[in-house]
Amino acid sequence: MPERHVVKYTFLKVDPAWRRLPDEERAAHKREFVAACEDFASERLLRAFSTVGTRGDTDLMLLSQATNLERIHEFHVVLAQSGLMKWCTQPYSFLAMTKPSEYSDESRLEVRPAHSKYLFVYPFVKTREWYALSADERWAIMQEHIKVGKQYPDIDLNTSYSFGLDDQEFVVAFEGDDPARFLDLVQRLRTTEASSYTKRDTPTFTCVAASVERALSALDGTPLAETAHA
Amino acid sequence: MPERHVVKYTFLKVDPAWRRLPDEERAAHKREFVAACEDFASERLLRAFSTVGTRGDTDLMLLSQATNLERIHEFHVVLAQSGLMKWCTQPYSFLAMTKPSEYSDESRLEVRPAHSKYLFVYPFVKTREWYALSADERWAIMQEHIKVGKQYPDIDLNTSYSFGLDDQEFVVAFEGDDPARFLDLVQRLRTTEASSYTKRDTPTFTCVAASVERALSALDGTPLAETAHA
Amino acid sequence: MPERHVVKYTFLKVDPAWRRLPDEERAAHKREFVAACEDFASERLLRAFSTVGTRGDTDLMLLSQATNLERIHEFHVVLAQSGLMKWCTQPYSFLAMTKPSEYSDESRLEVRPAHSKYLFVYPFVKTREWYALSADERWAIMQEHIKVGKQYPDIDLNTSYSFGLDDQEFVVAFEGDDPARFLDLVQRLRTTEASSYTKRDTPTFTCVAASVERALSALDGTPLAETAHA
Amino acid sequence: MPERHVVKYTFLKVDPAWRRLPDEERAAHKREFVAACEDFASERLLRAFSTVGTRGDTDLMLLSQATNLERIHEFHVVLAQSGLMKWCTQPYSFLAMTKPSEYSDESRLEVRPAHSKYLFVYPFVKTREWYALSADERWAIMQEHIKVGKQYPDIDLNTSYSFGLDDQEFVVAFEGDDPARFLDLVQRLRTTEASSYTKRDTPTFTCVAASVERALSALDGTPLAETAHA
Amino acid sequence: MPERHVVKYTFLKVDPAWRRLPDEERAAHKREFVAACEDFASERLLRAFSTVGTRGDTDLMLLSQATNLERIHEFHVVLAQSGLMKWCTQPYSFLAMTKPSEYSDESRLEVRPAHSKYLFVYPFVKTREWYALSADERWAIMQEHIKVGKQYPDIDLNTSYSFGLDDQEFVVAFEGDDPARFLDLVQRLRTTEASSYTKRDTPTFTCVAASVERALSALDGTPLAETAHA
Repeated sequence: MPERHVVKYTFLKVDPAWRRLPDEERAAHKREFVAACEDFASERLLRAFSTVGTRGDTDLMLLSQATNLERIHEFHVVLAQSGLMKWCTQPYSFLAMTKPSEYSDESRLEVRPAHSKYLFVYPFVKTREWYALSADERWAIMQEHIKVGKQYPDIDLNTSYSFGLDDQEFVVAFEGDDPARFLDLVQRLRTTEASSYTKRDTPTFTCVAASVERALSALDGTPLAETAHA
Repeated sequence: MPERHVVKYTFLKVDPAWRRLPDEERAAHKREFVAACEDFASERLLRAFSTVGTRGDTDLMLLSQATNLERIHEFHVVLAQSGLMKWCTQPYSFLAMTKPSEYSDESRLEVRPAHSKYLFVYPFVKTREWYALSADERWAIMQEHIKVGKQYPDIDLNTSYSFGLDDQEFVVAFEGDDPARFLDLVQRLRTTEASSYTKRDTPTFTCVAASVERALSALDGTPLAETAHA
Repeated sequence: MPERHVVKYTFLKVDPAWRRLPDEERAAHKREFVAACEDFASERLLRAFSTVGTRGDTDLMLLSQATNLERIHEFHVVLAQSGLMKWCTQPYSFLAMTKPSEYSDESRLEVRPAHSKYLFVYPFVKTREWYALSADERWAIMQEHIKVGKQYPDIDLNTSYSFGLDDQEFVVAFEGDDPARFLDLVQRLRTTEASSYTKRDTPTFTCVAASVERALSALDGTPLAETAHA
Repeated sequence: MPERHVVKYTFLKVDPAWRRLPDEERAAHKREFVAACEDFASERLLRAFSTVGTRGDTDLMLLSQATNLERIHEFHVVLAQSGLMKWCTQPYSFLAMTKPSEYSDESRLEVRPAHSKYLFVYPFVKTREWYALSADERWAIMQEHIKVGKQYPDIDLNTSYSFGLDDQEFVVAFEGDDPARFLDLVQRLRTTEASSYTKRDTPTFTCVAASVERALSALDGTPLAETAHA
Repeated sequence: MPERHVVKYTFLKVDPAWRRLPDEERAAHKREFVAACEDFASERLLRAFSTVGTRGDTDLMLLSQATNLERIHEFHVVLAQSGLMKWCTQPYSFLAMTKPSEYSDESRLEVRPAHSKYLFVYPFVKTREWYALSADERWAIMQEHIKVGKQYPDIDLNTSYSFGLDDQEFVVAFEGDDPARFLDLVQRLRTTEASSYTKRDTPTFTCVAASVERALSALDGTPLAETAHA
């Protein structure tokens, strides 16, 4: 039987003062950070994203996944020992788990981001009116939502669940190579009935896929080359 | 006659700059923190939890309990003298008391977390519409809520009361060893009638149980070993 | 004819870095703070409270009262010259005045906290629906509220008014020696009709009465001895 | 034809660390600040106010007025070069313009604070329901509001408009010598019909009138003497 | 076929401590910042604006535009290497794209600010009730809105879309030379039916057009000369 996974979205902001440190010191800090990531990633999913240029309040996002919460905790303990984390704050942090969907057979017990250029992430809370509907009513409303989504097959969705674990109910992560297509999908979804039951769907993050090394370089040096996503 | 207890949830965030101090200095800071905790814990309940990896805005939570508020005050005065507290902020703080429940005979006059792996904590405020219902109506609605909870016997609940003492009405603390089970319970409770009277139930904290020493080690060193919860 | 008074609640949070200063320097900072308080208190009401252990965002509260606003301003100018204030922020500040009540003959033109162990303070804003009721309707609703309060004679109330002077409409300050009694009163008041017209009643502060010296000691040293409230 | 004016309310908070600088350095910082103000005030309205003792999040407010926005911009550029501004943040800032009122003939194209002791300032936003009323309905409702105001002739009003220029719709500034009178007026206005269309009227600032020099002295030295307002 | 563009509004706030650095160091920091801007601007739209004197929480705004998001990301990576950015925070950041309008033929696939003196920018979110209307109803309501706008031909509008990419739905940027005219237009629009479907239209920024060099000079030196906009 497939296992459910713990999924963690960790957003980091580097203190501007870090950029004033000597090159060698910053390079050492980044090597330690990479080492912590490589250790975790050897057996589990770890993805890095840069938010430089898309958000003002965060620079880097790590998506980590494991079959138990202890391992996620341990990863962050080890990461905190890297020199870089001694200059970072975590302005956002979303803890979630995978779970079969009530509304779709295509749900996943693992978050499996493909190698799209972008990940669009937001925490999601529905109104309590939504939960007062019958299961059948909710199912019918979601079918319209899912049908619209299928018109955008180039956009893929990873939903995880945070009820009781963190401030949101869901963490929604869409993937795609073209921000315009995703924008059009989200605007189109505003007119569905499901949309009227949205209580909160912000903050919304546009995350640029990158290796850990490239996401770190974007903090103080060379931009991610476009070819990195080819 | 059993006494009511004062219950305090104290969340700490360590300044990233603390991690840049020499090892010996940090070790001394942690020893002083442990000493303050041991002194309090010798006669009263004190539990420590790590939130490294589950939240971005807090690293450590202390749950302290005493039969009077003076003792809670004194504990925090002594704690503040430890070297570690000179580098900490308290991003969250919940003051509460125990009280017999209107809705259940199983209420407790002490918060007694068993040795589960996780504590799930959130401040809770009900809408004023809830309080406009008759006592009988509220009782009936709560029975459905309690009945759902009983379907998850592996999840245990400690409720304390903050009316007039702090910003929330209740501090709710659930315990369990499996985050997925708790997530499923909370999602299931969304469809109860009681849920529609929720005004606020965030922030929501997933706290990893630990000894004080281990919770401190998680700030700058070795992760909590999984065996610590065996 | 009795005069109305200006009432000021000043909440202070000490920078954790202050605790790292040499003992002598901190002692001098506190002496200067005490001197400013003694000067004001020689002719006017000044009370000090510690919030160490009850709140995470504030350490100390000063309640000052004078017959004119200039004197309150002057007190804070002088206070700001003390060494301690050079390391403090003011996370909360409530400016108010006394005024005869529309609903009760027992109102006061001075805030006169007795020597209870605790002061429970919160800023209060009513909904605009409240003000759309007729004066008679409001009076009738308040009588139920006052009647409940009289069942808790050990809890005393000081209300002051902030309309147009500060962000809240009222500053409400209850006194008592037993937090459990106050908690029970506030929970009981939730079911009154008056309660449904509450727009905001947070943040809520549990303040531990102390001399200025003792409230300062609680910042970096010895806790308030329980006997201080005997 | 009389010109409309740009009106700017600039609130400053001094870093507590500034108070730890040597006396001479602070004196130089203040002289530079005064010089920037005098230059602007030579041809335009500039008023200074102290909020020491009335607010915890701001120390000083400058009210500047000019017939064009460029001049306001330039004033703040020059001001920023003073030593004092290198230690200040601007927790609040309101940009507005004068405009003839729809509801009263007494409107002004200049903000002209007389030399009252206090200025009571707040940003103001009305509900969209207000704007859905007909112009006649709005006019009628405002007449009741204006009539109440006329019962307090010792309180004078300066309204300016921020639609599209800043976060609020209006900046409202009342003047008077007696805070109790203003408090009573605002409480009285709560029961008018106009009041039910208020969306936001906070933060509310009680500002103590002062010369620039005296407002600066209140930051680190002598209080404003009461005679300064005689 | 014309391409859609990515549009980025980046707001910067300089740490007051930067102003305490030696003149030469600050000059070097600014030269590096200018170089990064010139590189980007050689082939793409880049506009600079000063908010000194109009806002308290931001000093400078850069509007950058490119046909793909990678280029925007790269620009911000390069910009972050300038000395100035090592002393800056980004209090606001809006990511958007151009898109043909549903309601007007005059929409643009490029943001093309003319050389007006001011840009008035705000993020915009409509209520979900808006999206529950039929397309025809929305179209009719928008015609009234557009008609009012046409009465102010000296005010020009650039709308971009952020659905799914950032926290807002739209970023609205109006241009004009006279703030009073824009204020009057926005106040007039409050009484249109479209206005009742506004959920959020703040923060609102009044931005003073400038060359990059002049916007930087406004941080620590000479104001923008009025002639710069002649």
